[in-house]
Amino acid sequence: MELNLPESQSRSIRCIVKLGGAAITCKNELEKIHDENLEIVACQLRQAMTEGAAPSKVIGMDWSKRLGSSEISRDVDELGDQDSAEFSKFVVVHGAGSFGHFQASRSGVHKGGLEKPIVKAGFVATRISVTNLNLEIVRALAREGIPTIGMSPFSCGWLTSKRDVASADLSTVAKTIDSGFVPVLHGDAVLDNILGCTILSGDVIIRHLADHLKPEYVVFLTDVLGVYDRPPSEPDAVLLKEIAVGEDGSWEVVNPVLEHTDKRVQTSVAAHDTTGGMETKISEAAMIAKLGIDVYIVKAATTHSQRALNGELRDSVPQDWLGTIIRYSK
Amino acid sequence: MELNLPESQSRSIRCIVKLGGAAITCKNELEKIHDENLEIVACQLRQAMTEGAAPSKVIGMDWSKRLGSSEISRDVDELGDQDSAEFSKFVVVHGAGSFGHFQASRSGVHKGGLEKPIVKAGFVATRISVTNLNLEIVRALAREGIPTIGMSPFSCGWLTSKRDVASADLSTVAKTIDSGFVPVLHGDAVLDNILGCTILSGDVIIRHLADHLKPEYVVFLTDVLGVYDRPPSEPDAVLLKEIAVGEDGSWEVVNPVLEHTDKRVQTSVAAHDTTGGMETKISEAAMIAKLGIDVYIVKAATTHSQRALNGELRDSVPQDWLGTIIRYSK
Repeated sequence: MELNLPESQSRSIRCIVKLGGAAITCKNELEKIHDENLEIVACQLRQAMTEGAAPSKVIGMDWSKRLGSSEISRDVDELGDQDSAEFSKFVVVHGAGSFGHFQASRSGVHKGGLEKPIVKAGFVATRISVTNLNLEIVRALAREGIPTIGMSPFSCGWLTSKRDVASADLSTVAKTIDSGFVPVLHGDAVLDNILGCTILSGDVIIRHLADHLKPEYVVFLTDVLGVYDRPPSEPDAVLLKEIAVGEDGSWEVVNPVLEHTDKRVQTSVAAHDTTGGMETKISEAAMIAKLGIDVYIVKAATTHSQRALNGELRDSVPQDWLGTIIRYSK
Repeated sequence: MELNLPESQSRSIRCIVKLGGAAITCKNELEKIHDENLEIVACQLRQAMTEGAAPSKVIGMDWSKRLGSSEISRDVDELGDQDSAEFSKFVVVHGAGSFGHFQASRSGVHKGGLEKPIVKAGFVATRISVTNLNLEIVRALAREGIPTIGMSPFSCGWLTSKRDVASADLSTVAKTIDSGFVPVLHGDAVLDNILGCTILSGDVIIRHLADHLKPEYVVFLTDVLGVYDRPPSEPDAVLLKEIAVGEDGSWEVVNPVLEHTDKRVQTSVAAHDTTGGMETKISEAAMIAKLGIDVYIVKAATTHSQRALNGELRDSVPQDWLGTIIRYSK
């Protein structure tokens, strides 16, 4: 695999965060952002990045005209000689939720075949939808004073070979981080050496980034408390608080102790989810944990997500914390 | 300079087009697209790319929800087994116009100094504004059935060294073209090895692309008929129809024959234009012409721009064509 990653003395990535599509968009409404969740997520991210430093005034970095207004944002007038807040190094990756999925599944972009007019058109339509979401997320984080930079995997040279990452220009991501910015990547339609094209999911991007950037921990923000032993809508669903990953990549639930012998969780894959469901998520998370990096799967915009983002779970997990920890255990 | 450009048997770029910021945005109204011009430009581009083929039904590729509607575009239902239109290879680069300029000039992003909070915030704000414009242009061209792919220079690894292009991942641009797409790049805020950051103008991007992709011709779409001998608002301004570029890069007006001896044109640089005005444009165009590539500077959304985009001016220039041709003359 091609890799072009400059050494940096200063780079020490604290956290890679996945903003799950289900958490930041209204999954059942086409191309609708969950504004309330996104605003809380942005605020929690800023708090985590500034490590609880005395809350200074937030300087918004989205100076665009507001919809329906001809005025520029006021943030720009407040910048003066303000000290720059120190942000620890985060990378954000988001899913598509109700953006892109319709376009991708309607046209079959994930199956490839760019020579077909519908696939080619669907590829263009998918990218328009997901880059639109990316822009809105970048703006939401920038309004919260986080120096975000939207980076589309397609443009960053991410290519796949039968859906596995074949190459990616991580050097631009690394330079962006080293310059004090927070890159915001996303699940994207990309070119594939074998299939012609496919969908590169946010989860695969995270695994690849984790492998090469070696963050201290990875947080998946979702719309449920964590991983359950069966679909969480079922009445007896049990939240899995800790999953241990072995050297061979296999994983088992260690907390709570489950009574039935089959410790593998049941999974459900939504029909319109072109990038796999919970099974994919756990497999990807297990591969990250195998690198010695803690993975927290937690409900977005809760006190639990704030603690996970803060890194409070690294040494000991509070009794009242709800979520799923996936850890390497030799 | 780093360069990573794979050989391609099939690649033969017909044209690189600059959509000038003044032509596609309302220059005096903040972040406002000139919808009418943009629609005509998109239509002319499609006609030029399909080389006057019998007009087939346009299949829109923007399937996003329309503003204020909860419905997806209808285009998707009309795709059936439609034949794919053959598009000749174009690359589109657009300027910023009333997007980005305010954010960049207010914060001094072009002068560098990322350690200053206002520059860092302005960098983020500028990128938000120009990527917003990029998305809208990609959508407008996709609605017209052009398989467009937005590509931000920042994300594509364009780096400068004291404002000169130091590196750029042209391999992704080339692969995008080879896959049958039309890349849409734009003037962007980028990292600079010396200054920390700066503004990379669309004109500099075009020169760099022309140098490496060797298109048959380059078209600059602007808001005036072409290059004049003085600001076009002045009553006696004369449209320069042909400028000849010598081996040493110097240029002179050959049509019309100007009476006064100083053949260099007067130039005006708008105060808010952080990337230079007409002088920069002619210099960049002259450098492209020196490569043996014809450059046409023409008013967008006119019959003159359609002819230039079609490539009708390569052999002989019709008497009634209005615009500026910049050509290499040995």
